[in-house]
Amino acid sequence: MGGDFGPRSIVQASLACLSATPSLHLTLVGQPSLLEELIHGQSAADRARLTIVAASEVITMDEKPAQALRGKPDSSMRVALELLRDGKVQACVSAGNTGALMALSRFVLKTLPGIDRPAMVAAIPTQTGYCQLLDLGANVDCSAEHLLQFAVMGSVAAQTLGIARPRVALLNIGTEDIKGNQQVKLAATLLQAARGINYIGFIEGDGLYRGEADVVVCDGFVGNILLKSSEGLATMIAARIEALFKKNFASRAVGVLALPLMKRLQADLAPARHNGASFLGLQGIVVKSHGSAGVQGFQSAIQRALIEIQENLPERLHGRLEELLS
Amino acid sequence: MGGDFGPRSIVQASLACLSATPSLHLTLVGQPSLLEELIHGQSAADRARLTIVAASEVITMDEKPAQALRGKPDSSMRVALELLRDGKVQACVSAGNTGALMALSRFVLKTLPGIDRPAMVAAIPTQTGYCQLLDLGANVDCSAEHLLQFAVMGSVAAQTLGIARPRVALLNIGTEDIKGNQQVKLAATLLQAARGINYIGFIEGDGLYRGEADVVVCDGFVGNILLKSSEGLATMIAARIEALFKKNFASRAVGVLALPLMKRLQADLAPARHNGASFLGLQGIVVKSHGSAGVQGFQSAIQRALIEIQENLPERLHGRLEELLS
Repeated sequence: MGGDFGPRSIVQASLACLSATPSLHLTLVGQPSLLEELIHGQSAADRARLTIVAASEVITMDEKPAQALRGKPDSSMRVALELLRDGKVQACVSAGNTGALMALSRFVLKTLPGIDRPAMVAAIPTQTGYCQLLDLGANVDCSAEHLLQFAVMGSVAAQTLGIARPRVALLNIGTEDIKGNQQVKLAATLLQAARGINYIGFIEGDGLYRGEADVVVCDGFVGNILLKSSEGLATMIAARIEALFKKNFASRAVGVLALPLMKRLQADLAPARHNGASFLGLQGIVVKSHGSAGVQGFQSAIQRALIEIQENLPERLHGRLEELLS
Repeated sequence: MGGDFGPRSIVQASLACLSATPSLHLTLVGQPSLLEELIHGQSAADRARLTIVAASEVITMDEKPAQALRGKPDSSMRVALELLRDGKVQACVSAGNTGALMALSRFVLKTLPGIDRPAMVAAIPTQTGYCQLLDLGANVDCSAEHLLQFAVMGSVAAQTLGIARPRVALLNIGTEDIKGNQQVKLAATLLQAARGINYIGFIEGDGLYRGEADVVVCDGFVGNILLKSSEGLATMIAARIEALFKKNFASRAVGVLALPLMKRLQADLAPARHNGASFLGLQGIVVKSHGSAGVQGFQSAIQRALIEIQENLPERLHGRLEELLS
């Protein structure tokens, strides 16, 4: 029921995923009459793999997490997470209020042993490939211990994506030991001592885009601002390139080359909007899609959840945490 | 004597500025024999406007600010700031250790009444022009009161650049009241109550690049990471565009159109390296050039200092602070 445009694009994305993946079963949680109306006309075969579970309340996009937690026991978000907790579904995907989703996920699913706070992670494009950046906004204030936990989770997430020995770095305003705030300096000490983590030291914002690390760790305030400003800058550059090519008639055809590149980059730089961002550190798989995600965006988020189910991400994370933090 | 490459490019930039600006007098502070050697062969006319003042010590790039402050009474940086304090020069430009320059500037020059901590500011390109972003790394941990002071200083700096009623925004991870950390939320309350400031609310990283504000305020950790990551992203995009145009022989000529645009943007996004960043809030003009600045970069920093002298920036700031904070 969440997202800036309500359930319409979510239902459309769900139906498209059901058609594309014959083994997929989906459960839509929300107001049954509205959902029934939106899925009306779906082929009988696909309809058999689609379940509707009723939830009478909806958490709005500007609701405070504490309010969502206490005030709405029958919200679609909470009911969906309870289905996950009870083993009735294997993953939960939402385009709703991020803060509320995080608070409810922690409350309903609980975190993995050794994890105080779940983090939000997504893959950011770099000069040499991708890097996993976390936290992207779930935790605005973080202690050094939280940053250490993010590093462990990001490292495992990168491993499930096929990187054998992920290079893990702490985002900072310099690479010398004396740089940074207290949390970052202390986290560096913790990471140097952590077994089994390939910690490579501090990284600056430009080093991230040069591809110097596979996992970059920061608090959610910094990560969110890095991500949003990157998205904004890519959009600005795309607009300038477009304007440039429009000026010159002869070069318009070549602008056709550069613009798809920029569109792809813009999409890569808005992972929550386009590809979904994962919550790591919970006893269950939760993928956040952007509130303004279109059909395509929500489909990507469902696909991301499918990969995490196949990779059994929470279980792998649990095993690795036991090794590392014991 | 500072910078990653020592005084060679600084002296070259100084000589170029002397030739270009007949009214300019420059004082070089450092080891006289080395400086004399570097300026050897300069025309007599320009040489008459160039003074050398001896300083026997040099602050290294990785020295802790506290160490620079206590341990080296005759460093070139300190002597230069003392010349400024004593009215022998009108501005100080340095490519040295940023933390040490900030600590020494505060100690030698003192801050303006009403300012606890000076901030570092530079102009960032946006879709509609430029925005003044501060702090860029001088202050890693900031209280709400510091952010308020930065907002006042940024607003005045934007006014000296010709913007009558600068739109001032606080950088945050959302635009709703409930978003952000404690400092940002409290700073918003202070800014709403501040007289004479055109405070427009929270801004996200993408809003900054859309040009939604003339002044964007954040702590130095966040500002530095935003700036460095933007620089890194622009470099990555430029590399991808270059690669794209190299692939296709027919389109190479058109790559010639896009690449100068990207080079200009990359330069704009590394203001400290290319154009100099100003320290605001001191009783005197201090411009920081990047440690790896070339001749061109250091020339820009000297030119920025010249503008601030013409605009009498500290005096204007002082007057405005008295109005606003009284």
